[in-house]
Amino acid sequence: MIIEIKEWLKEAAGYIRVSLTNELSVSQKSGRKDLVTNIDEETQLFFIKKINERYPQDRILAEEKGFDTIDSFAGRVWIIDPIDGTMNFVMEQENFCIMIAVYEEGIGQLGFIYDVMKDELYWGGKNSGVFLNDRKLTPPKDLPLSQGLIGMNAYMYKKNIYSAGEIGNRSMGIRVSGCAGVELIAMLKGNHIGYISNLSPWDYAAGLVLLNEFGFKYSNIEGKPLAFDKREYFLAATPAAYNEIQENFIHE
Amino acid sequence: MIIEIKEWLKEAAGYIRVSLTNELSVSQKSGRKDLVTNIDEETQLFFIKKINERYPQDRILAEEKGFDTIDSFAGRVWIIDPIDGTMNFVMEQENFCIMIAVYEEGIGQLGFIYDVMKDELYWGGKNSGVFLNDRKLTPPKDLPLSQGLIGMNAYMYKKNIYSAGEIGNRSMGIRVSGCAGVELIAMLKGNHIGYISNLSPWDYAAGLVLLNEFGFKYSNIEGKPLAFDKREYFLAATPAAYNEIQENFIHE
Repeated sequence: MIIEIKEWLKEAAGYIRVSLTNELSVSQKSGRKDLVTNIDEETQLFFIKKINERYPQDRILAEEKGFDTIDSFAGRVWIIDPIDGTMNFVMEQENFCIMIAVYEEGIGQLGFIYDVMKDELYWGGKNSGVFLNDRKLTPPKDLPLSQGLIGMNAYMYKKNIYSAGEIGNRSMGIRVSGCAGVELIAMLKGNHIGYISNLSPWDYAAGLVLLNEFGFKYSNIEGKPLAFDKREYFLAATPAAYNEIQENFIHE
Repeated sequence: MIIEIKEWLKEAAGYIRVSLTNELSVSQKSGRKDLVTNIDEETQLFFIKKINERYPQDRILAEEKGFDTIDSFAGRVWIIDPIDGTMNFVMEQENFCIMIAVYEEGIGQLGFIYDVMKDELYWGGKNSGVFLNDRKLTPPKDLPLSQGLIGMNAYMYKKNIYSAGEIGNRSMGIRVSGCAGVELIAMLKGNHIGYISNLSPWDYAAGLVLLNEFGFKYSNIEGKPLAFDKREYFLAATPAAYNEIQENFIHE
């Protein structure tokens, strides 16, 4: 299954790269800053078709229309963000990812975060580690909040939602990339010690499989398990930074 | 002179890349978030030595100690940031730049912004255009604030300094990279429509030469010429976004 998913990712990425030479068809979803393009939708359809052909019993939760809710996580479920960071895709033509996760009975088995323009695929599976393309990665150091950069949702930082502003000030600095996949990759590389944002299941499903392999802690911002059913405030960090954030900023 | 500067940049970058395999020696300057490493200092010395050998009459303004002030901009002056984005250099080992500018009688003649880890050199000169490595670039579209992403200093955004928070909200979104060179490159590529930060002369000297070639507008945030003598609030943007920011947010 891993080899197959990698092939699908490469095929989809080739198609996305070619699409950047053409005019995109961009539409608004909930507002002028919430965009979707024909490429998001076509990429999602590409994966759905592949999964339906090969694994007709499996169910799919995915960002774009018709697939963004699911009744149950029983059996095998695919969770897909065809283009994570659509704003960057439209504005920058880089700094966006394809994300795919495979869950069984609600437990993450495989995760794939593919930075399309850098051609960097971060992937891994339960109890089998984390890889960048063909190279196995080593887990980052367990640094405290004060010794690392933290990825942040800009609005949460500005409005100090759940003390995000104070958490950012305590860190070495915040970074705002506009793409959950890029932020999760920064954690896996050891570049950032954490990430605070407002995310939907397809934004974090693949990342959690990989974060788990490296011993990062994650939850909703209040410390409860992520619900996988709607957008919610999200926290992931090194154990040291996670505990400090929960104890000193969230439940102070 | 251009060929020579490119050779120096490649030589310095090679040295910097090798240095990342060793332990860095990191010190604080004005506080715990203002860092300098042995590599910043050694890279600065490397360029100073090269310039002194080849152009002994020229003067140098550069970020690190001993060279961070200058009496006058008469004659030819080199303005150097040996590692722009030192925090990223230390924490991420990427997203930092070398920046070099050559000014004559206070007027920018040549500018070089080198993203070391991506091996992307953005460079150009007065009336000769902007290049990425060997390829001449075309100027980005003159998009309004509401139609683009804007690079932003996180603190200015959070505290709404000079309405930076409101400016960010009016845009399609803010991005925070922690490196002036990375932000200026994003403008030259057409990825971002502007950049607001708090910068020193070596943070913007090279960028202004290139922004000028592409018709971007820039000044201190109040609309006055940049002073080139200390840290000040900086604004650069497409003409449409620059005028909108000045008229609707700064001098409303």
